[in-house]
Amino acid sequence: MSIEKVNIEDKLSQFSAHWSPKIVGELNGQHVKLVKFAGEFVWHKHDDEDELFFVVKGAFEMHLRDKVVELKEGDFIIIPRGTEHKPVAAEEVQVMLFEPAGTLNTGDKIGELTVDNPDYL
Amino acid sequence: MSIEKVNIEDKLSQFSAHWSPKIVGELNGQHVKLVKFAGEFVWHKHDDEDELFFVVKGAFEMHLRDKVVELKEGDFIIIPRGTEHKPVAAEEVQVMLFEPAGTLNTGDKIGELTVDNPDYL
Repeated sequence: MSIEKVNIEDKLSQFSAHWSPKIVGELNGQHVKLVKFAGEFVWHKHDDEDELFFVVKGAFEMHLRDKVVELKEGDFIIIPRGTEHKPVAAEEVQVMLFEPAGTLNTGDKIGELTVDNPDYL
Repeated sequence: MSIEKVNIEDKLSQFSAHWSPKIVGELNGQHVKLVKFAGEFVWHKHDDEDELFFVVKGAFEMHLRDKVVELKEGDFIIIPRGTEHKPVAAEEVQVMLFEPAGTLNTGDKIGELTVDNPDYL
């Protein structure tokens, strides 16, 4: 397989749907995903996966049961497995995720927002 | 353990040495590292680890045996395990790495540039 670079701005320009992660890289059993958030997600947790959120553009709040962490461009946060969390974005935010392949976006809360098989971009 | 955000610009301001990766996050057995490159590194490979290089600021060339890939801010490249590579930076570049915990910066080429136990920042 040919080794090619990926430009995240270019990839982000290729979709507009919110809460719909796209897979843009894979290594060591982990996926690199890009996602756009706007509004409020659902409270959920991942029993077996730690999850990293890196803000590419914009800002959002990560709600935890005991506090709210405000994240802006250039910040990342790691949510350990088993930890309930809920992203909330007052305006659209562009985020890069790093998490094990197969991680479900809504974790233990299967519902309308669940994306079973994210697209590769 | 308390869940805190990390600002990568803040972390990058805390060191100046080149080719000396700092660990800024850990999840799923993987490390998130920040590193500053300037000049030419050594040809090396990692037998068991895929490695992601994401350009935070600046630009560099990833030399592969069959081509050179030019990377600029917002680009990433994944170097699969077993693939010889050599980063070259005409000017200082700031890079975020994702790779398995324990990945040695010089891979199979132990030498002066090898950092056995990267600092946590």
